[in-house]
Amino acid sequence: MANTLNLGVAGLGTVGSSLCTMLETRSDHFTQMAGRAVKVTAVSARNRDKQRGFSLDGVTWHDDAEALARDPNIDVFVELIGGEEGVAKAAVEAALEAGKHVVTANKALLAKHGVDLARRAEAKGVALNFEAAVAGGIPVIKTLREALAANTISRIYGILNGTCNYILSKMQDEQLPFDEVLKDAQQKGYAEADPTFDIGGFDAAHKLSILTTLAFGVSVPFDDVHVEGIEAVSAADIEAADELGYRIKLLAVSQQTDTGLEVRVHPALVAKHSAVAEVSGVTNCVAIDGDYIGSLLLVGPGAGGEATASAVASDVVDVARGLVLPPFVRPVSALTSSNCAELGAHQGAYYVRLTVFDKPGGMAAIAKCMADENVSIESIVQRRPDSELPGGDRSGNSGQAATVILITHKTTEKSIRDALTAIEQAGKVSQPPQMIRIEVL
Amino acid sequence: MANTLNLGVAGLGTVGSSLCTMLETRSDHFTQMAGRAVKVTAVSARNRDKQRGFSLDGVTWHDDAEALARDPNIDVFVELIGGEEGVAKAAVEAALEAGKHVVTANKALLAKHGVDLARRAEAKGVALNFEAAVAGGIPVIKTLREALAANTISRIYGILNGTCNYILSKMQDEQLPFDEVLKDAQQKGYAEADPTFDIGGFDAAHKLSILTTLAFGVSVPFDDVHVEGIEAVSAADIEAADELGYRIKLLAVSQQTDTGLEVRVHPALVAKHSAVAEVSGVTNCVAIDGDYIGSLLLVGPGAGGEATASAVASDVVDVARGLVLPPFVRPVSALTSSNCAELGAHQGAYYVRLTVFDKPGGMAAIAKCMADENVSIESIVQRRPDSELPGGDRSGNSGQAATVILITHKTTEKSIRDALTAIEQAGKVSQPPQMIRIEVL
Repeated sequence: MANTLNLGVAGLGTVGSSLCTMLETRSDHFTQMAGRAVKVTAVSARNRDKQRGFSLDGVTWHDDAEALARDPNIDVFVELIGGEEGVAKAAVEAALEAGKHVVTANKALLAKHGVDLARRAEAKGVALNFEAAVAGGIPVIKTLREALAANTISRIYGILNGTCNYILSKMQDEQLPFDEVLKDAQQKGYAEADPTFDIGGFDAAHKLSILTTLAFGVSVPFDDVHVEGIEAVSAADIEAADELGYRIKLLAVSQQTDTGLEVRVHPALVAKHSAVAEVSGVTNCVAIDGDYIGSLLLVGPGAGGEATASAVASDVVDVARGLVLPPFVRPVSALTSSNCAELGAHQGAYYVRLTVFDKPGGMAAIAKCMADENVSIESIVQRRPDSELPGGDRSGNSGQAATVILITHKTTEKSIRDALTAIEQAGKVSQPPQMIRIEVL
Repeated sequence: MANTLNLGVAGLGTVGSSLCTMLETRSDHFTQMAGRAVKVTAVSARNRDKQRGFSLDGVTWHDDAEALARDPNIDVFVELIGGEEGVAKAAVEAALEAGKHVVTANKALLAKHGVDLARRAEAKGVALNFEAAVAGGIPVIKTLREALAANTISRIYGILNGTCNYILSKMQDEQLPFDEVLKDAQQKGYAEADPTFDIGGFDAAHKLSILTTLAFGVSVPFDDVHVEGIEAVSAADIEAADELGYRIKLLAVSQQTDTGLEVRVHPALVAKHSAVAEVSGVTNCVAIDGDYIGSLLLVGPGAGGEATASAVASDVVDVARGLVLPPFVRPVSALTSSNCAELGAHQGAYYVRLTVFDKPGGMAAIAKCMADENVSIESIVQRRPDSELPGGDRSGNSGQAATVILITHKTTEKSIRDALTAIEQAGKVSQPPQMIRIEVL
């Protein structure tokens, strides 16, 4: 049997604590699975005195993560600090420089500096493993790196942010407005005090950027990812989508198209009976379309200390078993620059919600703006304004706003955007139009 | 870069042909992914002259798979012959004996002789990879061996036979009887001329047996797997289940219980809105419950030449990358004998369909038989017999048979079986009772 594999764990929050507890309580299991003992030899964290439910007896304490990264007694540096710059980046670079394998759950770091770090790992012949950085416990990195190695991938998409999925699911299930559900999610710990990073789509975009490099062999500057959040999704949208046979999800999609690679995160309507529509709450999913595999869907926990520790542990076991791959499967030298498609060229159907002044000619003007851009309408639902409820003014000229829901046939993003701009400029709507892409899964 | 990895491919049916075509048409891709060239060096098949869509120029032909297995020019023996004994077994043994890595899609061989073959592979320090043997293109073997290595698994279940799932889905969607759908499946090539192996549940049981050894570290004699097929599932069952909020699926389940490990394949009622209920047609799925991961679900193609070739290719790439693991993760010496639970001790709810003589006292007798075995009834639906349709004899004493559907609360298999035996012996039913387990997913 090979020597003990010695870990240095930087960051002892929920994931780090779960990992250390796991290694302490099932060391025989690890020895059997990995073919050698796996042991936490040294750690670093902010607070040395905090009780964490596992023993630090015989474990070297470092106040400084970089010092831990260079500790000559460790073989693998496990980075669970987080953050795209600062300590995490410096420590990972130090570990690679010292020829240590690195296992990290840090999606922001990888989205911004992944290719550079991969180059450093390859130069030293060490592993840079990051299963836990995308979709928590779901083994999507391993699936792309190894299980689907023979395939040419045409699309990868999924629900990669549990906070957004929890909020949208609860808005759907309980017919509640966004603000109220967000507050509830914050109270339950599913959303941060400052939720921008999650609900703005940036967290999902970080993960998508990593998946895109793996799946397509391209290096995508993070700024090339199109990101929209869920802040503008209203209870009215969710209700209208439901009536039309759809659910609204924050989707992350990378897709080869005739005009290039689309890399986008945004709310999307998905058919109610699709597998992705059934993924609710904090659960994540990733679907991969490849030429040999057809379609593969993975569904599981996208976060949580234990599920994430499970992914970190599998990365560690891979190192223990001697598996060292180029971090993005292909060597960095073989990655190409992304040829990201202009989103204006995106082809698809759209959901549009308009708040139209209830005056004669409104619908005619809207229809003309759509026709001028060659956008053809599949279905249209106009809801009567409050004034037309029983007892109201039924003149059709109340001046109140009526809600109009349109579903378009397949068109381009540029066409629908131009049509909506024209509708706004024609003064027929009382609020900016709502537009959500419909995704065919 | 390491030397070329030379493959010997035995069996050139749909999977073998897909694999050879793949390796021929994307050799650069393989070289990049695997870090070395991967090449088909020698093959064997029944018919040398058949056109298969790829070139055999420069490839050594063997009439005999065993001779191919021993060919000194190959590094990996890829067995795509099939069958649990005979040529496939002899050739795989010969390859291992000669110190070749083996990749196989042969579930029957592994279910019957997997542990013995694993012992031989371990003794020689070579790989025995079989991703394609279970659930086609779904990477469940890799997930269990590697991604979930840290977890203690409590349950693994899934839809592992596409033929059965196609038949049950079509019976559901088109309200057709079993025989008619089976004939359609045979015409479409989804079912064999002799369909017993699939519809009897044996194919799923082979796959479950392999998964069970991997997931639980136990060696399960194939005869210890409880196997029931779908032959007895009627359109009436599917309709009644639908009304009660369920779908009927052929499930393969291995589950740790207080009385031991349950390893069983049988039709089961699953809640309509569970992810597994949404898996329809020839698609397969596998769900794994582990203590750190929680629940993970994989959905994808369970068969097909290309999807299966994708799985075979990933096994080959693993070998090319130098990954050699004990075939069942733990070394064979660490596998334990199965402590299979008696199915009589199985706890769960049951669906029961009775064909009751339409005479006074029938329901009372049935209720008493259930009560005598402490089986408590959650719901009961009695359908009127044809004679009670408008214009019929409404005496309640027609002598015709009425259908009674019962859903029980949680009970034991022994109790429900004893109750049903008593009901039959009391002469209250005109046909043997139908009983289907309800699975909580």
